[in-house]
Amino acid sequence: MKKVKVAIIGASGYSGQELVRLLLAHPQVEITQFTSRQSAGKSVGDIFPRFRGKVKATFIEPNVSTISADIAFLALPHGVAAEFAVPLLQKGMKVLDLSADFRLKSAATYKEFYDHEHPAPQLLAKAVYGLPEIRREEIRKAQLVACAGCYPTSILLGVMPALKKGLIKPETIIASSMSGVSGAGRKAVEDYLFCECNESVRAYSVPKHRHLSEIEQEISLMAGRQTLINFIPHLIPINRGIESTIFADLATKPDNALALYREFYQGEPFVRVTDLMPDTKNVESSNFCDISVRVDARTNRLVVSSVIDNLTKGAAGQAVQCMNLVCGYEETLGLL
Amino acid sequence: MKKVKVAIIGASGYSGQELVRLLLAHPQVEITQFTSRQSAGKSVGDIFPRFRGKVKATFIEPNVSTISADIAFLALPHGVAAEFAVPLLQKGMKVLDLSADFRLKSAATYKEFYDHEHPAPQLLAKAVYGLPEIRREEIRKAQLVACAGCYPTSILLGVMPALKKGLIKPETIIASSMSGVSGAGRKAVEDYLFCECNESVRAYSVPKHRHLSEIEQEISLMAGRQTLINFIPHLIPINRGIESTIFADLATKPDNALALYREFYQGEPFVRVTDLMPDTKNVESSNFCDISVRVDARTNRLVVSSVIDNLTKGAAGQAVQCMNLVCGYEETLGLL
Amino acid sequence: MKKVKVAIIGASGYSGQELVRLLLAHPQVEITQFTSRQSAGKSVGDIFPRFRGKVKATFIEPNVSTISADIAFLALPHGVAAEFAVPLLQKGMKVLDLSADFRLKSAATYKEFYDHEHPAPQLLAKAVYGLPEIRREEIRKAQLVACAGCYPTSILLGVMPALKKGLIKPETIIASSMSGVSGAGRKAVEDYLFCECNESVRAYSVPKHRHLSEIEQEISLMAGRQTLINFIPHLIPINRGIESTIFADLATKPDNALALYREFYQGEPFVRVTDLMPDTKNVESSNFCDISVRVDARTNRLVVSSVIDNLTKGAAGQAVQCMNLVCGYEETLGLL
Amino acid sequence: MKKVKVAIIGASGYSGQELVRLLLAHPQVEITQFTSRQSAGKSVGDIFPRFRGKVKATFIEPNVSTISADIAFLALPHGVAAEFAVPLLQKGMKVLDLSADFRLKSAATYKEFYDHEHPAPQLLAKAVYGLPEIRREEIRKAQLVACAGCYPTSILLGVMPALKKGLIKPETIIASSMSGVSGAGRKAVEDYLFCECNESVRAYSVPKHRHLSEIEQEISLMAGRQTLINFIPHLIPINRGIESTIFADLATKPDNALALYREFYQGEPFVRVTDLMPDTKNVESSNFCDISVRVDARTNRLVVSSVIDNLTKGAAGQAVQCMNLVCGYEETLGLL
Repeated sequence: MKKVKVAIIGASGYSGQELVRLLLAHPQVEITQFTSRQSAGKSVGDIFPRFRGKVKATFIEPNVSTISADIAFLALPHGVAAEFAVPLLQKGMKVLDLSADFRLKSAATYKEFYDHEHPAPQLLAKAVYGLPEIRREEIRKAQLVACAGCYPTSILLGVMPALKKGLIKPETIIASSMSGVSGAGRKAVEDYLFCECNESVRAYSVPKHRHLSEIEQEISLMAGRQTLINFIPHLIPINRGIESTIFADLATKPDNALALYREFYQGEPFVRVTDLMPDTKNVESSNFCDISVRVDARTNRLVVSSVIDNLTKGAAGQAVQCMNLVCGYEETLGLL
Repeated sequence: MKKVKVAIIGASGYSGQELVRLLLAHPQVEITQFTSRQSAGKSVGDIFPRFRGKVKATFIEPNVSTISADIAFLALPHGVAAEFAVPLLQKGMKVLDLSADFRLKSAATYKEFYDHEHPAPQLLAKAVYGLPEIRREEIRKAQLVACAGCYPTSILLGVMPALKKGLIKPETIIASSMSGVSGAGRKAVEDYLFCECNESVRAYSVPKHRHLSEIEQEISLMAGRQTLINFIPHLIPINRGIESTIFADLATKPDNALALYREFYQGEPFVRVTDLMPDTKNVESSNFCDISVRVDARTNRLVVSSVIDNLTKGAAGQAVQCMNLVCGYEETLGLL
Repeated sequence: MKKVKVAIIGASGYSGQELVRLLLAHPQVEITQFTSRQSAGKSVGDIFPRFRGKVKATFIEPNVSTISADIAFLALPHGVAAEFAVPLLQKGMKVLDLSADFRLKSAATYKEFYDHEHPAPQLLAKAVYGLPEIRREEIRKAQLVACAGCYPTSILLGVMPALKKGLIKPETIIASSMSGVSGAGRKAVEDYLFCECNESVRAYSVPKHRHLSEIEQEISLMAGRQTLINFIPHLIPINRGIESTIFADLATKPDNALALYREFYQGEPFVRVTDLMPDTKNVESSNFCDISVRVDARTNRLVVSSVIDNLTKGAAGQAVQCMNLVCGYEETLGLL
Repeated sequence: MKKVKVAIIGASGYSGQELVRLLLAHPQVEITQFTSRQSAGKSVGDIFPRFRGKVKATFIEPNVSTISADIAFLALPHGVAAEFAVPLLQKGMKVLDLSADFRLKSAATYKEFYDHEHPAPQLLAKAVYGLPEIRREEIRKAQLVACAGCYPTSILLGVMPALKKGLIKPETIIASSMSGVSGAGRKAVEDYLFCECNESVRAYSVPKHRHLSEIEQEISLMAGRQTLINFIPHLIPINRGIESTIFADLATKPDNALALYREFYQGEPFVRVTDLMPDTKNVESSNFCDISVRVDARTNRLVVSSVIDNLTKGAAGQAVQCMNLVCGYEETLGLL
């Protein structure tokens, strides 16, 4: 089978680095271009010393006219991603966008949560939300995949069986999440210095983090009605990993919630339902989402714990999983 | 003013070590005895190298007949603490117990959560729950103070203003907490090895952690009716610190929740209501509890974040604060 | 090409876990048996949750009579490894030993450093020291490979070019190394608890760590004379990684030490000579050894910094690299 | 005794924060002014949330004409410190400088290591190197104290007994040190982001770190002759702490190096000679320097391990210790 040619646009951050790691190991991918505004002209190995000896390429300017590949991965800040997506789609390329630009169906919601007008609202209908466990078939046919965010992935996979099986009351969902510091990106900001994060834990973006918008969009679709929920993220001193603990009032009492979850996810290659509470270290650098669930009979609530690696299943791994679908490859290729 | 003579019973764990740190620096305390079954005969400085040059004492066997002091601090496992409390109280000493043995008013609840019969149920009525912000006056007169637990302290201080002011519906309270690894004690157990905790976060004791019992007992008292809630703890890779994020449905919409909290805690020397979300690193090794609060108008819920140092305000600092009350000292003596 | 059948003996520690990770991904390996005394009867995925969904096997008792494979990897404590090596070699299997049992040529030196008689001295002459960059051709033909230790690998690769080119005086070598805590193994010991290692750094085994014996053996061979050196290890709060900083008096002043090192290691697939000082994070979970070097003209000394992942190039990766040589595979197979 | 009035100039970094912590707790100090260019007008509690409830002051501009106190602590970058020292000394204040500006006696050496002309060479003779264990009597009489650097403190205290007793050959001294990330200051630089430092260790400033200049100056004075040495620092993922491992060839073989060190430091309130290798966690937030020493009879070398908290004994604690001497207070006041 011929390898697919891939360009990585904006490869200088942590998600970009994880994309490089995964795509270098992918048997059906040839990375033809690495772009980076700030590192153009420098070798990939100099900027990412961990890849020296594995890749000889040099970063080029992210110039739309010179980008040439079958597939473009956009690892760019929101707002910027749309600027690239529009012309690359016009050139006929398939686009896997890791930013938040095309995840929402509503330009108004985008503006409410991202504080500026959507840069390309005409593409919102065309884009497919890139969470294969929800939209596998649509992703296969998509030209523009808006890969799901990190927190949303952990929360949506955590609540989907309960919601789809009518186990819980949607509007009672409360999610408390913790993320490693790589989720904040590779930005030289005082808040993310080692001494500010080590021996520290803090809630942030309370009560309205940007990711809440896509979580509510997808929960509403699952619930069949417009649903608002609570989601509070916290920063903890680990490099990689997200844990989401989710609470919801039971609508019906299941015989065995764990068995129900296990059955729901049977056949899903990247979701593991576990007896014990999951631990982020067991999904580190992997594309798995580990989930466990308990019924609290005392309060009549469901409690779910869901963990992913925010850079893999929460970003680059998810994008590669979507690419496999788009290209007609085995979904797990290069990821197991 | 004459110094109070103090014995530290069972000083070999992390809470014991923190007690030593605080009591050595306390201007009105003379530590007369350090007991430790496993370290008897060894110098305190050999077992706790950080105290070498500050204390010359030697650990003695925890033998009730030889313990002699005005006040005994019990830094012992639950179950064991009661064995010491009974005879020490009979000797006329005042007892500050850091264990869970005397926190609950109901021996039945104790048995339900701790899986064995209460060892001294006759003392439960006599013991005062040691959270000065709730029971200051009773603590002043107590002979037996059952110092509040670490998670309970962070959660109870976080919800008290809202509950007492009728802001929230008690039975909708959901608390998601994170603790540093010192909370697990100084036990040679594989789960708490560096490599098992570093780069890891995991929920545990889902859905019924032992501390839930005292949290519900005190919330029920505040709410004026028997109340069950959800509380899920998580282990994160920090040494010291607890953060609790608490959610509850609003009963009435406050004009300004932050102002209400600030007014409620006016005059409390160890509670700081903060504009920004609190961070455990700002209470490290201190007796402060930092709290912030937000109303989520979208979901009509209150969100509170509360942080303490689990070894200080969550254990040894709280015990010293209670001792100050018991002894008639300034409440903040040796703690600010 | 037919896959080689592999048994992993004693797979319950950190090196064993890393072996499983690497061998599962190796295209020419079929793992036929996982043994573990303490986990016999349990599934590999239950003991190592990170492998659930990747392997369905169950641990069996490490019973020599039932072990059947082309190759056995021994991930056992020293002393125990020899007990298995003897009968497995007699059965005709090839043995890749990750322990220290067969690294030394002298049984007397073994006794001096390991405090007990060597359990199988008759095999010492037969065993090949498993550091491919030094003994590639002998490893290809070996039946018993004694894979080099973690500290020794970082130090020997760091000094080899300088020693072989006569740049330094061997007996002036001083190595100061730091290791992540996984190097201490997965033992429930108080010293390796999270709170004892986090925010801590300490030297240990001063001045005579066991690994000194194999370092001196190999340095003596490179130097052409019996050489004693200094080596001091330190424990630092990371999971994986070793850094060794090595000092030695110059014998001759090189024109360009960096160029000399680069030339020496040209063609070595797993040694990268870097302009900048190397960082353990760039070799994490990889089989690379990154090295940089400086001449200090003020003191007339050479300074080398060398980093590896102690579990990969320092243990399991090295063993797989040796296996590739033993099996006649491409040396980098499954490792790049 | 009347309290001394103290101004903290440039209090927004990690050393400044530690100064605030120590001086707030000092019984004979009244902090009259906190200056900070970037935080002027803001309350100290807002910038340092850990001090809320303990201090009500507001930062003022660092304007020489309005600074008024008996003593000024300069917690400023090198180069800037001298600009303040000159006029403050002229106003008759005593100056405790935490920067490197006045540590060297030679303006030429300053230029060699700091890459610019010394800003106030006329003061170099007047300044006293602020390491009380070396210059106690001169510090008592000093108007300008150049507090010793963090690495130099750990190394100089580690070698002093050996050098002064003629145990080692000065020019064979090799020091390999590790520092926590707070040593890099509170600067928003990518290299010190959490994800760049966590799970990482790296050497830096090889082979000529700036602190080498003051280490060599003081070692030369102890040795009685101009001495060059090697010193290589490493960055490790802890907040606070420095460990220095020091090697040197023996000049004479001591009967008992540990006893000799213990005797040498007898009476020193902040140096603890320990049987076991010292650990940074035991000096965290304290002004102690813990030291242990071994003779390696195989190589005829001395090996010393010395640990301090880089922000306390390595910066702010040392400055307070010097202030106690300058003011005629008990040397340990506010520090034990």
